Amino acid sequence: MVSPLFQNLGPARPVPGFRVGSASCGVKSAALRGQRQDLMLIVADVPAHAAGVFTTNAFRAACVHHGEATVRQSGTNIRAIVANAGNANAGVGEMERVWAQGLVDLAAQAAGVESSQILSASTGVIGTPFPIERIAESIHESVDSLVEDNWQAAAQAIRTTDTFAKWSSRQFVANDGATYTITGVSKGSGMIHPNMATMLGFIATDAPIAADQLQAILSRIADRSFNSISVDGDTSTNDTVYLLSSGLGLGYPKLSDTSEFEKAFTEVAIELAQLIVRDGEGVSKFVTIQVNGAQTEQQARAIGRKIATSPLVKTAFAGSDANWGRIICAIGNSDAPIVPGKVSLSADDVRIVEGGNLHPDYRDAMGMAVFAQQEFCLTVSLGLGEASATVWTGDLTHEYISINAEYRS
Amino acid sequence: MVSPLFQNLGPARPVPGFRVGSASCGVKSAALRGQRQDLMLIVADVPAHAAGVFTTNAFRAACVHHGEATVRQSGTNIRAIVANAGNANAGVGEMERVWAQGLVDLAAQAAGVESSQILSASTGVIGTPFPIERIAESIHESVDSLVEDNWQAAAQAIRTTDTFAKWSSRQFVANDGATYTITGVSKGSGMIHPNMATMLGFIATDAPIAADQLQAILSRIADRSFNSISVDGDTSTNDTVYLLSSGLGLGYPKLSDTSEFEKAFTEVAIELAQLIVRDGEGVSKFVTIQVNGAQTEQQARAIGRKIATSPLVKTAFAGSDANWGRIICAIGNSDAPIVPGKVSLSADDVRIVEGGNLHPDYRDAMGMAVFAQQEFCLTVSLGLGEASATVWTGDLTHEYISINAEYRS
Repeated sequence: MVSPLFQNLGPARPVPGFRVGSASCGVKSAALRGQRQDLMLIVADVPAHAAGVFTTNAFRAACVHHGEATVRQSGTNIRAIVANAGNANAGVGEMERVWAQGLVDLAAQAAGVESSQILSASTGVIGTPFPIERIAESIHESVDSLVEDNWQAAAQAIRTTDTFAKWSSRQFVANDGATYTITGVSKGSGMIHPNMATMLGFIATDAPIAADQLQAILSRIADRSFNSISVDGDTSTNDTVYLLSSGLGLGYPKLSDTSEFEKAFTEVAIELAQLIVRDGEGVSKFVTIQVNGAQTEQQARAIGRKIATSPLVKTAFAGSDANWGRIICAIGNSDAPIVPGKVSLSADDVRIVEGGNLHPDYRDAMGMAVFAQQEFCLTVSLGLGEASATVWTGDLTHEYISINAEYRS
Repeated sequence: MVSPLFQNLGPARPVPGFRVGSASCGVKSAALRGQRQDLMLIVADVPAHAAGVFTTNAFRAACVHHGEATVRQSGTNIRAIVANAGNANAGVGEMERVWAQGLVDLAAQAAGVESSQILSASTGVIGTPFPIERIAESIHESVDSLVEDNWQAAAQAIRTTDTFAKWSSRQFVANDGATYTITGVSKGSGMIHPNMATMLGFIATDAPIAADQLQAILSRIADRSFNSISVDGDTSTNDTVYLLSSGLGLGYPKLSDTSEFEKAFTEVAIELAQLIVRDGEGVSKFVTIQVNGAQTEQQARAIGRKIATSPLVKTAFAGSDANWGRIICAIGNSDAPIVPGKVSLSADDVRIVEGGNLHPDYRDAMGMAVFAQQEFCLTVSLGLGEASATVWTGDLTHEYISINAEYRS
């Protein structure tokens, strides 16, 4: 069943310099081979510049360690991303590194490039041996299916229990007058089987931008997109976002001004991130939390995340209950500085708290009407500075409990 | 309906120097007046030494500010604690301080002591005007009912939606050869109405210990008891624990060695804290998380709390699913240093992970049998040092969602 918050997506435009393919390996179970795609291959026809951001979890999977090292060592000469669903190759002990390298070697061999030019990612069950032999048998399908206009297939192939495939695409005109494309795919947050918590994002562009600039932009924008969503507050062992550029490899002159790229990339990254919330486990409401008036963006985001991860706030969303006391309480539990008498809170355009006091015009029914909607926005104003941040989250429902507590029953 | 995790409690022994009373004021609703007790008064017949620990939430209620200041200014001359259920007197803006002072003044007048000698606490709905006039009408009942052997009534009177009253009592022999008593009450975590999240604890002893030593012991032991439990990870605006000693006021010579007191007090504090978990919203399982081998106690506790607040771990408890990958993932999400290859995990006496690898003898059914119990213990060993900490928590169930999302429907 597709999430009620699904929205129709625009076209996933091909990106010059990249071809995309997929394969059905039966990673999760041999019986699924031929039934659903579970391996994705993005090949750069020229050496691509690359950037990556990775999970902060101390139990990082081997593919995360490998990807980070590869971006650092070969970030101006990447030829492919290979990713599988169905098995996270995590928590399996000493074989994890061997299997992660095996996936990379198989992809290199199939694509006809060097192993050092491959980035990888895995998502799926933690703690189950990785079926490297099933990947070896079928990975050639992903090479056979490589075409430019195939990003939707990539989005399909990295789904685990996501209820819909996720992509985003933008075109923009840079300061050199040329039109460039950014297209990306993501997956995450539809956990029905154990430990499938991974958030993945793979984004490609033909805009000619060097690896170090790509990395700076990705790190900055990841905080305002992928790191600004929360479904249940748990960070997976395998979270990975890669950003590749083919432009320099295609011989385009380097962009002297990346601001238009950054603007378009921000839209793509936010859309990909929001789609993960819309497909979050048991999520029936999409809530934007806007925090203004903070001293720093980090503090604004910390408060937004505190609201977005409070079970009491999230159950209030689920119950269409404008329980502003829980929101105030969550704001107070962040480590960011707060002056209670300066805090204001609105839900859409209904002012609830102003300067630490309940607004005299506020009536419960007004808040209830906002919270009853499928989508709404909370705005917190701290009155301490000029910095702001936006966080996107969903509600906490019976469906979440059912998905996570009952799947083995 | 009483929580399935309720256990019969021992006697609540009277403490020399203290008398306890209660009243029915109809704080939450005038219609409840005479129906249930909702105000508690503990009177010290002599000036008591006092210590307190308070919520870290930035939106502290006025009673918390007042209590902290009073402990600081009059910590060797406290004559009473007054506490009400039914209204937290929080989030109501500028009147909050006036009403908090009003509660203290009324208690002082009724008990015949100075306002400066009173500690107070309130718990209940946030954001609703405080019915000070209803308290004025009925507070005399609490004075009329003052007797030494009345601690169970105090425990009853501070309940909000707690399904059972909570107390704990110990006697110990100190190094002076005398037998002393420690008795305390607590409330918390049975939220059916909005925002009743407050954790309160009031503990009295006749052991002759001065205020500064009481404060040092309370601060240390609060971390190992009240601050080591989690139901849903939200910290209330009103959390308060007071510890009073009548011994010096009764003319007993000061204890030269407080170690036996600290040992007995630790048992009382842990029992009071555990009772809150046992009565936690929707909690059907009681889980002890023991973290060993950390570099510091703080780091051990941080990891224990991360496990105890992960929705994925807590739903796994609910589903009797020994989903160790989620536990490992939660361990990795703490800020404490981790060396994955040194981490071990057991459930009761079943070894699951050892030195970062799945234990070769482990089978899913073994973990499942442990997680199917109503009470069990997870032990995490980090292999980095000698420090340890224990955290107590419950599972996350449909009942939690029902309590918090549906009470207005």
